[in-house]
Amino acid sequence: MLEKISLKKIKKTEASDSLREMREQLIDLANRAKADKLPVIITVDGWSAAGKGVQIASLIKYMDPRFYDVESVRKPNAIELRKPWLHRYWQKLPKQGNFLILDGSWYRDTVNALNHGEIDKAEYKRRINDINTFERQLADDGYLIIKLFLHITEGEQLRRLEKLAGSEITRWRVDEQDMKNNKNYDSIFKRYDKTFTRTNTAFAPWHIIPANDKFTAQYNIMKCVTEAVRGACEAKENGGRFCQIPQFDTCGYSPEEFNLVKTKKLAKINMDKSLTDEEYGRKLEKYQSRLFALQNICYQRKIPVVIAYEGWDAGGKGGNIKRVANALDPRGYEVKPIAAPEPSEAARHYLWRFWTRLEKDGHFTIFDRTWYGRVMVEPIEGFTPKERTEMAYQEINEFEKQLTEWGAVVIKFWINIDKDEQYRRFKERENTPSKQWKITEEDWRNREKWDEYEKAVDRMVELTSTDFAPWTIIEGNDKKYARIKALKTICKSIEERLFDKKGGE
Amino acid sequence: MLEKISLKKIKKTEASDSLREMREQLIDLANRAKADKLPVIITVDGWSAAGKGVQIASLIKYMDPRFYDVESVRKPNAIELRKPWLHRYWQKLPKQGNFLILDGSWYRDTVNALNHGEIDKAEYKRRINDINTFERQLADDGYLIIKLFLHITEGEQLRRLEKLAGSEITRWRVDEQDMKNNKNYDSIFKRYDKTFTRTNTAFAPWHIIPANDKFTAQYNIMKCVTEAVRGACEAKENGGRFCQIPQFDTCGYSPEEFNLVKTKKLAKINMDKSLTDEEYGRKLEKYQSRLFALQNICYQRKIPVVIAYEGWDAGGKGGNIKRVANALDPRGYEVKPIAAPEPSEAARHYLWRFWTRLEKDGHFTIFDRTWYGRVMVEPIEGFTPKERTEMAYQEINEFEKQLTEWGAVVIKFWINIDKDEQYRRFKERENTPSKQWKITEEDWRNREKWDEYEKAVDRMVELTSTDFAPWTIIEGNDKKYARIKALKTICKSIEERLFDKKGGE
Repeated sequence: MLEKISLKKIKKTEASDSLREMREQLIDLANRAKADKLPVIITVDGWSAAGKGVQIASLIKYMDPRFYDVESVRKPNAIELRKPWLHRYWQKLPKQGNFLILDGSWYRDTVNALNHGEIDKAEYKRRINDINTFERQLADDGYLIIKLFLHITEGEQLRRLEKLAGSEITRWRVDEQDMKNNKNYDSIFKRYDKTFTRTNTAFAPWHIIPANDKFTAQYNIMKCVTEAVRGACEAKENGGRFCQIPQFDTCGYSPEEFNLVKTKKLAKINMDKSLTDEEYGRKLEKYQSRLFALQNICYQRKIPVVIAYEGWDAGGKGGNIKRVANALDPRGYEVKPIAAPEPSEAARHYLWRFWTRLEKDGHFTIFDRTWYGRVMVEPIEGFTPKERTEMAYQEINEFEKQLTEWGAVVIKFWINIDKDEQYRRFKERENTPSKQWKITEEDWRNREKWDEYEKAVDRMVELTSTDFAPWTIIEGNDKKYARIKALKTICKSIEERLFDKKGGE
Repeated sequence: MLEKISLKKIKKTEASDSLREMREQLIDLANRAKADKLPVIITVDGWSAAGKGVQIASLIKYMDPRFYDVESVRKPNAIELRKPWLHRYWQKLPKQGNFLILDGSWYRDTVNALNHGEIDKAEYKRRINDINTFERQLADDGYLIIKLFLHITEGEQLRRLEKLAGSEITRWRVDEQDMKNNKNYDSIFKRYDKTFTRTNTAFAPWHIIPANDKFTAQYNIMKCVTEAVRGACEAKENGGRFCQIPQFDTCGYSPEEFNLVKTKKLAKINMDKSLTDEEYGRKLEKYQSRLFALQNICYQRKIPVVIAYEGWDAGGKGGNIKRVANALDPRGYEVKPIAAPEPSEAARHYLWRFWTRLEKDGHFTIFDRTWYGRVMVEPIEGFTPKERTEMAYQEINEFEKQLTEWGAVVIKFWINIDKDEQYRRFKERENTPSKQWKITEEDWRNREKWDEYEKAVDRMVELTSTDFAPWTIIEGNDKKYARIKALKTICKSIEERLFDKKGGE
């Protein structure tokens, strides 16, 4: 793509009125984006010394600083390296109506990281795939992603680097790597080019900005940004979907397909399983000490464990989680109770609050209720349009795939009880003073929708039982049985990862 | 204090029933704390090898893991070192109804940091003072703080360290520093002792736990925690205030007194100041480029700048902030718009959301509305009882003092307009389509309370204009004048810090 870029200068004398006009428009457009609740992400990548900082400053000069956030992307720090690599970008996601402007982006951790030897080619390819998934997920959620690359020629880069290095004030901005990269301009050129080709999608196309001339770059960036924001606002106001006009042919992207494992419908589950007190006591000790030993290995090898708990109200999630937690060193896990999203959460992609709650590697993150609310509560209660929640099965499989790539063991439980058992437990809660806080009118209302929920659960289990993150249905009428099954499943899943079987170590 | 601790063993045979009983009670007490919205912080400090991890595990074994969070306190990491030292503890504050259990605490960064040569004696003393302030602020807000120190004797410590070092599995847990500390047991003993004496306050007294014997420690911890939580719940249910029974005489603590500078009442401000367009254009350029140069120095010297904007509705905060932001490198500042608190914010100390929004040193944090909502909006709208908001003047001065100690330049603006000017601007907003989102019914309602607000502002300015963080009243009827005054004040305040005058460098 890069070789097709015209480096023709735009003359300041001819275009400065038009630039001024666009700047005025951008002020109104930012207000319009606010009113339309349009979230905008602008990534600014480019060659060293291409002028990213100056261009960003000039872009935002007329915008209200309360509506945007500018962030520099550098090498990931020690803590960022212990999370999934896209974690730090998820964390920065802007709210609806706000702009996030990134100086550098996830492409830094991909193409630059490869150039600098931080990652190998296989990891590079995985990341290209993750990027396409990430950008598609955001675009599907209504994010406008404007990807800019500031392109300068080899000679121009050398001239600028030498000028920077020649002045005492700016010398610190040039390092050895920059000069080395200039010598390898051609090979880096090819790598950028390949990366652009592979990530030039219809939902997030590249805008290559000729930047040998500062004014030309300024003009093109402003044009590109105002057009995209205007288009996205118009589309949003008309209930449609906006696509930026790609500068080049887009790549043939299609979402990854996953292997699903066979599952059973809830109605087919044998709910009679139980344990005696004696069996329970014995097995509890056995699996808890096994889990404790496994946690130690995970901690040392920095393997993250993510456990997702779902289940019927009064299914016994709390008590079950407690038995798991009791087995663990308390400094190595956190339980995340998930309730209705807060305003700042509802104003972002629904997966944001789960991404940002992940503990670092070597630790356990236990979710009490999860991202699966998206395909159960939301469509049934009508919080989100069905065509949007329907996308969640794919999105969730992708999310869990990325957790697995990070190295995580992902374990998902549906704690199943039957309708009679739920009734009994609701009544018991109502009649026990210390448990009354656990039962609300909403629980009774949800119970009336049992059949609807059952269908949704069956479908969820069917569509999201991937080979890397399958569901485990736990027969929960007997709490003792349920706890042991959960503990045993966790132990086995970790052991499978640690001691091969599925091709682990 | 330490030398008075009885190391007498409690016999397992005699007390294990009683321990079991307390454990059962703790389950109910945790539920009760949840219902009462009582936030609890338990800090567990102690000698190396005193068994902190084991004791924490045993304490929480019976609690619901959704209600507590256990965190290990280690040496601060690179990012934590660029924030105020208490920042990482503020960040971890539990919500009302939840428990935070810390393995190590802010005392690690004080007494241990001094022992390890990370800080000097003057800094140690400042931190002791900060700690007393921090703990009092939390206690005043209803937090229950239980401070435990696990005490073992020199011989017992040596025995344990040698045992740990002797086994291949546990060897990694003992480092050189531990052995060195054991040799210096006596001098460290004295330092701990002094620290306890200085921080043994009525609102957060120390509990020294004899820990040579594991069971004795377990028993005493459980006794101490259940008594405190029960007491705090009872007090909260009866609308009273709870104090733990101190093991030793408490220290004579009284809040720091600050020097206030003389201020003017709003009614005495001359509101006729204005600038011509020509003066404005010239001065804008002058101060913006001066500020840009100053930002560069702050960035290099890692000096944080905190700017707080308050003012009447339609006072022109947005446009003012924009002129400041325009002068700055966008990668070096963030504007934080402050609205009504979200549920997770309202469930914590009101300063929490400001502490957690601070950018790292070398950066500018610009607050659009601030912590001063506590003494304006809250008492007038009646969100918080008056006796509680009255404490805020002291709390805020302490907060800003701590920012100053961190090295920050703290600048506070009240943008003042008169009542007629506000009316004109409200009307203009209503009549301009692109500005209509800026004006709501609430603005008109607030306007009716002008006199009440004016009184509150006068009082706020009087009581929180400290010599380290004075208010600047900005005459805002003329927006041009207001913007230049803000820019000029920011430049001057930074220059004062950089180039002495008030004893800067």
